[in-house]
Amino acid sequence: MSNRLGKLFTITSFGESHGRCVGVIIDGCPAGLPLNEEDIQKEVDKRKPGADAAATTRVEEDRVEVLAGIFNGVTTGAPICLLVWNQDVDSSEYEKTRFQLRPGHADYTAFMKYGGFNDFRGGGRFSGRITVASVMAGAVAKKLLGLIGLEVLAHTVEIGGIKARPLALDEIKKNVVKNTLRCADLKAAGEMEQLIQKVREEGDSLGGVIEGIAVNVPVGLGEPASDRLDGALAGALMSIPAVKGVEFGAGFAVAGKKGSENNDPFVLKDGKISTATNNAGGVLGGLSNGMPIVVRVAVKPTASIARSQPTVDIKEMKEVSLAVRGRHDVCIVPRAAAVVEAMMAVTLGDFALRAGLIPRVMK
Amino acid sequence: MSNRLGKLFTITSFGESHGRCVGVIIDGCPAGLPLNEEDIQKEVDKRKPGADAAATTRVEEDRVEVLAGIFNGVTTGAPICLLVWNQDVDSSEYEKTRFQLRPGHADYTAFMKYGGFNDFRGGGRFSGRITVASVMAGAVAKKLLGLIGLEVLAHTVEIGGIKARPLALDEIKKNVVKNTLRCADLKAAGEMEQLIQKVREEGDSLGGVIEGIAVNVPVGLGEPASDRLDGALAGALMSIPAVKGVEFGAGFAVAGKKGSENNDPFVLKDGKISTATNNAGGVLGGLSNGMPIVVRVAVKPTASIARSQPTVDIKEMKEVSLAVRGRHDVCIVPRAAAVVEAMMAVTLGDFALRAGLIPRVMK
Amino acid sequence: MSNRLGKLFTITSFGESHGRCVGVIIDGCPAGLPLNEEDIQKEVDKRKPGADAAATTRVEEDRVEVLAGIFNGVTTGAPICLLVWNQDVDSSEYEKTRFQLRPGHADYTAFMKYGGFNDFRGGGRFSGRITVASVMAGAVAKKLLGLIGLEVLAHTVEIGGIKARPLALDEIKKNVVKNTLRCADLKAAGEMEQLIQKVREEGDSLGGVIEGIAVNVPVGLGEPASDRLDGALAGALMSIPAVKGVEFGAGFAVAGKKGSENNDPFVLKDGKISTATNNAGGVLGGLSNGMPIVVRVAVKPTASIARSQPTVDIKEMKEVSLAVRGRHDVCIVPRAAAVVEAMMAVTLGDFALRAGLIPRVMK
Amino acid sequence: MSNRLGKLFTITSFGESHGRCVGVIIDGCPAGLPLNEEDIQKEVDKRKPGADAAATTRVEEDRVEVLAGIFNGVTTGAPICLLVWNQDVDSSEYEKTRFQLRPGHADYTAFMKYGGFNDFRGGGRFSGRITVASVMAGAVAKKLLGLIGLEVLAHTVEIGGIKARPLALDEIKKNVVKNTLRCADLKAAGEMEQLIQKVREEGDSLGGVIEGIAVNVPVGLGEPASDRLDGALAGALMSIPAVKGVEFGAGFAVAGKKGSENNDPFVLKDGKISTATNNAGGVLGGLSNGMPIVVRVAVKPTASIARSQPTVDIKEMKEVSLAVRGRHDVCIVPRAAAVVEAMMAVTLGDFALRAGLIPRVMK
Repeated sequence: MSNRLGKLFTITSFGESHGRCVGVIIDGCPAGLPLNEEDIQKEVDKRKPGADAAATTRVEEDRVEVLAGIFNGVTTGAPICLLVWNQDVDSSEYEKTRFQLRPGHADYTAFMKYGGFNDFRGGGRFSGRITVASVMAGAVAKKLLGLIGLEVLAHTVEIGGIKARPLALDEIKKNVVKNTLRCADLKAAGEMEQLIQKVREEGDSLGGVIEGIAVNVPVGLGEPASDRLDGALAGALMSIPAVKGVEFGAGFAVAGKKGSENNDPFVLKDGKISTATNNAGGVLGGLSNGMPIVVRVAVKPTASIARSQPTVDIKEMKEVSLAVRGRHDVCIVPRAAAVVEAMMAVTLGDFALRAGLIPRVMK
Repeated sequence: MSNRLGKLFTITSFGESHGRCVGVIIDGCPAGLPLNEEDIQKEVDKRKPGADAAATTRVEEDRVEVLAGIFNGVTTGAPICLLVWNQDVDSSEYEKTRFQLRPGHADYTAFMKYGGFNDFRGGGRFSGRITVASVMAGAVAKKLLGLIGLEVLAHTVEIGGIKARPLALDEIKKNVVKNTLRCADLKAAGEMEQLIQKVREEGDSLGGVIEGIAVNVPVGLGEPASDRLDGALAGALMSIPAVKGVEFGAGFAVAGKKGSENNDPFVLKDGKISTATNNAGGVLGGLSNGMPIVVRVAVKPTASIARSQPTVDIKEMKEVSLAVRGRHDVCIVPRAAAVVEAMMAVTLGDFALRAGLIPRVMK
Repeated sequence: MSNRLGKLFTITSFGESHGRCVGVIIDGCPAGLPLNEEDIQKEVDKRKPGADAAATTRVEEDRVEVLAGIFNGVTTGAPICLLVWNQDVDSSEYEKTRFQLRPGHADYTAFMKYGGFNDFRGGGRFSGRITVASVMAGAVAKKLLGLIGLEVLAHTVEIGGIKARPLALDEIKKNVVKNTLRCADLKAAGEMEQLIQKVREEGDSLGGVIEGIAVNVPVGLGEPASDRLDGALAGALMSIPAVKGVEFGAGFAVAGKKGSENNDPFVLKDGKISTATNNAGGVLGGLSNGMPIVVRVAVKPTASIARSQPTVDIKEMKEVSLAVRGRHDVCIVPRAAAVVEAMMAVTLGDFALRAGLIPRVMK
Repeated sequence: MSNRLGKLFTITSFGESHGRCVGVIIDGCPAGLPLNEEDIQKEVDKRKPGADAAATTRVEEDRVEVLAGIFNGVTTGAPICLLVWNQDVDSSEYEKTRFQLRPGHADYTAFMKYGGFNDFRGGGRFSGRITVASVMAGAVAKKLLGLIGLEVLAHTVEIGGIKARPLALDEIKKNVVKNTLRCADLKAAGEMEQLIQKVREEGDSLGGVIEGIAVNVPVGLGEPASDRLDGALAGALMSIPAVKGVEFGAGFAVAGKKGSENNDPFVLKDGKISTATNNAGGVLGGLSNGMPIVVRVAVKPTASIARSQPTVDIKEMKEVSLAVRGRHDVCIVPRAAAVVEAMMAVTLGDFALRAGLIPRVMK
């Protein structure tokens, strides 16, 4: 129950950071969709630690394997099982400091929830590594959404207080692959890289903001009450580890606006209804309105830092000081962008199927 | 499927703004909980238009009726059906401007989704009025949560750019009932009221921010992947009409913080583990950590404004100008606070039941 | 959670036998379906106690009311709320014998499950009266299924050991309305009526078997593992109070057959694939195979009998003797046929929607 | 959606007969349950083809592997992933006769449902082999149920028309392991074996009946309307491939009984409430009543037979004759008994968790 998302296109993830594997079951994908390991690998690679300043030095090979649901290069309608085997796992540090609660991590909450039975190594089930399952599922969802021309893109708009300036979608698309930070404002990206380098030397970490955009979204995805599209997307995005805020369109800025400023006027454009502005971020009344869905998520600075921090040893029940060793990203924002894309794709894929926009069997 | 929330404590709402009633089915409430109409009425009254400057002049009597699930003053374990009958409904304006899409409303998206078959009167199923169903369900959830001492409170922290200063929980509790804006900073409340009055005269509207707080939350509510407590709360809160952003603890401010600043150090307090700060807003790794859950939601300015706005007539497919008549709130933030409380209570109630913290039958 | 059925076309029932009402929420019905109270009343009337020997003398007016989801004579896409108000309720007998467990009823199990907080009057939530909710939902499902020509019919094939002889579908359709027992073999029906009269005089009751048939079922409804069509139908049918067995096609007779006898050979008929026989009852591998779905359910004799029975007083914890007064059917088989039809329609309607065979919005 | 069962203790199966593996995700198992591969292997071995006359000659090694969710010999609270790799797979026959629809199999229905994209080899997702996933999940559920003393047992009561005589539970338990047919009536078992041998030589197959028994079931498991315990069990059992009927207690025999015969009188036994007889099969009003749950399922004769059968080639659309080669069981009843046990355990485990009878974390 607890590890499943979606109604018709459902994903159930499994695996732990230092266990044998991380995987996902996708149940509800239509039959006849051409799909191979490379389609999925491509997305998983986006999430890989880059050669950039921000990333961990843990080598994650992450070769995607298909265990079920694909036959002769197409989906069969059966549940799809995808996984990556864990390799290069070093649990020794975690064994040593097992009972010293890492600030900002789930060590304490998981210990309490599971009575200490949880796999604590590398954060176990609570590790950011688990998001590789979401990314694999997102790759399948993207393929599905491609059938109706719907595209999802996420890019870095802020790191450590440095903000990218707003750019047109085309420019974002073109630039986002030009640097490992996935930041389309190349000047800001340069400053972010310098800051990351500096903070790495301090043994500290940085947070930021990712913006997710979906274009060519049909009008009317979503439901009026508890399955509103914005509610579902917010739930999915806030479920990405380290995300502490989600906002659509004008977001928190609506608090300072008047209705006359915030309402997006309806206009006719080429004989079609559209809105002149997009303060709504593509969602009106819980339903997609045909404008690009624009959502921003706040990502907290990596909790694991090399600097010594005060904390508690839960076995000894005494206060101690802890420097988290191991290999960690200074800033996970660029890698998390791949997860934002994936969660948007998974959610939109589910709604598109529910709306009957994607057939249950391909022709 | 589309109008249901929760796993064990589930709520399904029904009804339309100008239909016969708005109601809710609560399925999964334990048996033996003392509950009567007044418990629910009390919460529904919080959502009523106040005598304040911000509110609509529509008279909503909203007398709660129990149709099922309560017998001899206690819950029976059967589904609870609660409803309020619609009264004082004036649909004439809506009939006249039926095809003129109100900017900021679901008129367009609902028309497209339901092929024009939707009940358009007063926004129908997409009206803010539907939230009375959530509030009735929240009243039941609050009673349940009271059994474990868990309390939920929402208050206004910003309207139209005017921010309340941060206050201690005790002061918030004491002050929030002192004005109809539910703002604990009494000085800010005064300024907000003046602004609302001014904007009402301009035929315009205002947005704001509500902060929801839950205290005495047991450690470990939530699940690691798709039912994370923050994800579930965000999904529920973003599903409240007009909400455009949700953030926990430090929220979007994490983007400018370093890990050493943002991590909440674990400390021992009276022999118990706690955190020195609460940047996490009470949720670590998707699980409650025992600190108060602090969540803020951005509420957009009321979409219905008296000022004339450009829009489109979807029947004639031509651009027109529309001044939304009818009776509307200048700012729904104070009334929406009751809905924020309710949705937090419903979500936390479901998780508490799932965690086995509340028995299936009262003793 | 506990009172809901379906995935896309979902029904949630509420109400108690002697409470204010019995109702149902249908969430997921497509928009634009013409539907009025008479469509539903017609089905509800089928379930009414007839003028026949078998029925109770409780007068159930059961006028269907639409509380939500229908506007201008069509469904709106919003949740549909239907209910009947309880009238002619006499709880006095139940108050008197509250703690004397009626054999064959849920008095004991409900008391234990809900700690005695359950509404015991007339069986409360466990009364056969609750099935009126299923029948109302079934009426909506039938309308939906009518769009693809799918028809559902249930008829009485056995009462008190008297079996109807097998008849062709046309004859069943024609004859089933000719008597209040819904038995198409008119000779057997006559014998059944005599037996019922005799058993009524004895203060006893009778069981029987109902056969449900669905024709024009598209090939491929159902899922391979846990949502198999036969599994889902069996689950829904076994959930009708008093049902103790469910079998498809050859049913339990398969135990005495060889594969060569039981396999239905595939044949070509008018250029289409069909099977020469229908031992499978229309379901192969959990999926509909295009042949009529034929399912039989065993219905136990009415538990309430006028004859004195040994039982236990749960308050006094002593053995007592109980004659169940009140007004009861000697045999509920004919009335239960309406419920069998309804549950088949609800289940098939859900699967047809999930398969995308019924559009989300009517044209 | 389609391959998942349960609400709190959920199982999702994946894999195909001739794919890489068959596996299952168990999401919702409490943390701290001692569990190892041998616990699961033991149950899987029960389902293995025996050395008996009834079984296939396909060698299924079926070594259970744990991919996730178990750490240091106990469950962690994370999803448990169990699988067996497919070995000794010979798909050549299936390739040759790919379009010749095997009577009694899902070849036709799956082809139609999935547009021919389904993995047809060995029945793919519709093979009886998939039930190994259920058995693995059942092994975990049995461990859980053991915590409250609840035991599940399934035994063969009929094969090819030969019926076992009724025996006391103790005798069943003792005898069921004495022969590979899992038939406790040793005399009947001998006759069954002879019949199986004879029918094997005829190139034909046999059906039968399995009885499942659950003892020490707490009173009150189940829900009143759509999650009735009998409904849920019937749904789960009818979802086992080849099952065509399910009945509880007196089952279809209720059709010939009077209420005075069929009602189980309540009695006091050692100061506790019980029933004198068990015609209800342990379920009253959809809730367990504390008596043994007794359920019988009808299993059709193996669809694959060596004898030539008329059928259709779906590619050529012409009638052909087909003798199903490959290796098959003459009678799957004994192996299916393991699946019946598993599905009962999974369903009861879910209900026990939902009722709060099993803690979310072991002490």
